[in-house]
Amino acid sequence: MNTVFTITTNGPACHELTRDVAGWLRDIGAGKGLVTLMVQHTSASLLIQENADPDVQVDLLGWLDRIAPPGNHPSMGWLRHTLEGPDDMPAHLKAAVLPVSLQIPVADGRMMLGRWQGIYLVEHRTAPHTRKVAALFMPSEPMVPGVS
Amino acid sequence: MNTVFTITTNGPACHELTRDVAGWLRDIGAGKGLVTLMVQHTSASLLIQENADPDVQVDLLGWLDRIAPPGNHPSMGWLRHTLEGPDDMPAHLKAAVLPVSLQIPVADGRMMLGRWQGIYLVEHRTAPHTRKVAALFMPSEPMVPGVS
Amino acid sequence: MNTVFTITTNGPACHELTRDVAGWLRDIGAGKGLVTLMVQHTSASLLIQENADPDVQVDLLGWLDRIAPPGNHPSMGWLRHTLEGPDDMPAHLKAAVLPVSLQIPVADGRMMLGRWQGIYLVEHRTAPHTRKVAALFMPSEPMVPGVS
Repeated sequence: MNTVFTITTNGPACHELTRDVAGWLRDIGAGKGLVTLMVQHTSASLLIQENADPDVQVDLLGWLDRIAPPGNHPSMGWLRHTLEGPDDMPAHLKAAVLPVSLQIPVADGRMMLGRWQGIYLVEHRTAPHTRKVAALFMPSEPMVPGVS
Repeated sequence: MNTVFTITTNGPACHELTRDVAGWLRDIGAGKGLVTLMVQHTSASLLIQENADPDVQVDLLGWLDRIAPPGNHPSMGWLRHTLEGPDDMPAHLKAAVLPVSLQIPVADGRMMLGRWQGIYLVEHRTAPHTRKVAALFMPSEPMVPGVS
Repeated sequence: MNTVFTITTNGPACHELTRDVAGWLRDIGAGKGLVTLMVQHTSASLLIQENADPDVQVDLLGWLDRIAPPGNHPSMGWLRHTLEGPDDMPAHLKAAVLPVSLQIPVADGRMMLGRWQGIYLVEHRTAPHTRKVAALFMPSEPMVPGVS
């Protein structure tokens, strides 16, 4: 069972997908197994992070800008891939060190996430984008007939 | 087949899990398939790293402190999420760039790790914590009846 | 179904594996499922990145050298694990923040990669190396008999 989640973004931000994935697993009657999510882009990421204090996301985005500053920052004058603007190559750099895919064990149809873990798409580009996240559920036991 | 590994930590360090995971795969009679490990926290990580020279772990933890210094470091005064102490937000930053989950192919019941690869839980917080790592083995062939 | 890809490297560079993996999936008659790739080393990485402009790879390698400079760089004098040369520990650091494994959903025998996504082995060491990437395809539906 697989699907694609579509997320519309409008600049660097974290978009929570936890409920969407949980709802899809419920809809397909998932029991025990593994869910894989993979972002189909090279300038956006997936991430499991704290879902309690929104300041965590602000601090994370701020820190990513410090380790991979925009291409027009004095320290980044050596970049070559700058045709699409100063946020282009840093977006690829952030996408290299944040996850492109996530794998989450599923038991009794529910993801085995910790108490404070949420699933996010992280947009790295400045301009609005439409992002696709491919999802696959692999059952580790035969699915109950008629449920999915 | 799934389980949860529990690790007690006492400050930033790497805790090797390789033998625990290998032993569990043996116990359940795993043949060929995929093992997934996922840490159920947002301030600790999983990692596959060199298992030969312990200095690698010291250097890794030192470097993580340099790219994501404590919140009371002069360069980090802009952090917002500081309520739980200066090691809190940097722990989330480190957890963003180190793996939250690992997937390792298994053949003949053994993980296909390289000669120098060990599996580690990496603690990022200063205070003692109890960490949980969810594990799932997915067979790619039917399990031999009576073995698991 | 599993295999091992072997890549010969000659210094820091990105080696594209997309066609090799796609060809292998075709050869084994893969339908729907999940492909896992895992590099069996701690000083090389796997990566999904843009496959259009080769400058992205040059910029990425340059940036990795800036966040994890060689051990003989003035800022890195604190490193302990230096016996194998100044590129050794930085290679482990880069390998900690870039993926050690990748998971890609497969449908109709084809990886669900985005338009601009390519699969790469990233070599971090200066000296020539022979690198191994373990691959596993897990079908989510029974394989058609006689095809694989």
